[in-house]
Amino acid sequence: MQIIRTLAKMQKSVARRDRSQVTGFVPTMGFLHQGHLSLVERCRENCDICVVSIFVNPAQFGPKEDLANYPRDLEQDLKLLSKYGVDQVFLPTQEDMYPSGYRTWVEVEGWSSILCGASRPGHFRGVATVVLKLLHLVQPQKMFMGSKDFQQTVILEKLLQDLNLETRIIRCPIVREADGLAMSSRNSYLNAEQRIQARCLFQALQQAKILYQQGTNSSQALIQVAREIISAAGGRPDYIKLVDATTLEERDEADDNTRLLLAVFIGTTRLIDNDALSA
Amino acid sequence: MQIIRTLAKMQKSVARRDRSQVTGFVPTMGFLHQGHLSLVERCRENCDICVVSIFVNPAQFGPKEDLANYPRDLEQDLKLLSKYGVDQVFLPTQEDMYPSGYRTWVEVEGWSSILCGASRPGHFRGVATVVLKLLHLVQPQKMFMGSKDFQQTVILEKLLQDLNLETRIIRCPIVREADGLAMSSRNSYLNAEQRIQARCLFQALQQAKILYQQGTNSSQALIQVAREIISAAGGRPDYIKLVDATTLEERDEADDNTRLLLAVFIGTTRLIDNDALSA
Repeated sequence: MQIIRTLAKMQKSVARRDRSQVTGFVPTMGFLHQGHLSLVERCRENCDICVVSIFVNPAQFGPKEDLANYPRDLEQDLKLLSKYGVDQVFLPTQEDMYPSGYRTWVEVEGWSSILCGASRPGHFRGVATVVLKLLHLVQPQKMFMGSKDFQQTVILEKLLQDLNLETRIIRCPIVREADGLAMSSRNSYLNAEQRIQARCLFQALQQAKILYQQGTNSSQALIQVAREIISAAGGRPDYIKLVDATTLEERDEADDNTRLLLAVFIGTTRLIDNDALSA
Repeated sequence: MQIIRTLAKMQKSVARRDRSQVTGFVPTMGFLHQGHLSLVERCRENCDICVVSIFVNPAQFGPKEDLANYPRDLEQDLKLLSKYGVDQVFLPTQEDMYPSGYRTWVEVEGWSSILCGASRPGHFRGVATVVLKLLHLVQPQKMFMGSKDFQQTVILEKLLQDLNLETRIIRCPIVREADGLAMSSRNSYLNAEQRIQARCLFQALQQAKILYQQGTNSSQALIQVAREIISAAGGRPDYIKLVDATTLEERDEADDNTRLLLAVFIGTTRLIDNDALSA
């Protein structure tokens, strides 16, 4: 497994790459869990070359967010990636990615300021910009993303389409703990009690799904049941919304193309989850 | 000479391209003059494949600007490009470049809202976005740009650097009419009297240059002489500024790394020009 720490070395490696081979890319912020590793596995299965980046992107954290405390364990990450047969790990530095005088930003307008973007101003601008930079550097045909960050995936697909990039996003399923909690590096912030409370996100989605499958379409009713479950468990909803899965617009009625999206504070930790209510 | 009218055909052509060949690119809005053709010549001399795009980019025109009236003569443009040995002419449509629901924009912050950006809000966002799209589609190693649009070139070089694109911009000299007027498609808006008035831009730059070479460094004095020449000719300055050629910051004193930038209304036509005062 090759470890690449500079942009120039990444660019050289791409220039030497055999163009007949398909390159797959898994961008991460490290502190890898089974969710990330499922993306790596999928990438390995579908591509000739598997590139994983680890970069805690300061541009996607707000001034009051957890950049400094974001969990990191590079040694363990590299062990895991080596075991999973990754070809290249790209570890750019903050100084190389955002040198002094950096001033170029890309934004998927409208979709970046709703849902998670409403609580995290600038977050998706930071995500869109770093992913575009990484795509220019790594030049993969396919990029593998987990569905936990549903809004992020929709935004990045739009970015690729609007900017005429040929990279395709492969959406992969959410990987969950045994009790249903979606895997996230931020789960490490939870203490034992909060870890139990955190089950409420999945439980809320499950309950809404049951209601929907029993014939309840009204977003108000579906959101209400989710809210009750979350509140009863001690969670504080940031938002609970039923949206069109393509356009992210809020919808009054659930159907096969809607998705229920949640962001919930458990203590000071903000967790997200989502599900299609059909099937 | 191959004429390519769809994004898909451009992408296919790039996929088939021999990677050992150097592709050069000249983005234009058409109505070609000797300034554009000098870029094409330079591209031909320096690259194996020469691609020229013609696309009047609506995103870089303000709501009160001259999009509808912008001069067009595709037949004549194609004749000229064929004569100059261009390999591919790319003619994307507005509908393909900005389909319904388009919402992704790139901005080089700060530098896009000063100088021409102060009078033309959104202009450089439109330029940056369309150029990034065209670069993704055409994938050239080199892009040839004229120095008349000095701020544009500085902004696009920053964009390429910040977003880690490997395309290099080749800056080419301003091409002028016999009386010094910088060539521009917008010169076609001028009537006979205005065409004579329009000489004042070059004359102002020349006079400032003489003063500088005689020992005057003060931006105030250099700008003052330029303003007098422009006003005496009946021009209305939008701005006259001495800036750092690298950072576009205004400077109080001229030196080898400053540049005098002008935007002047002649009647309702807004013309730009610029020069280094040294050498």
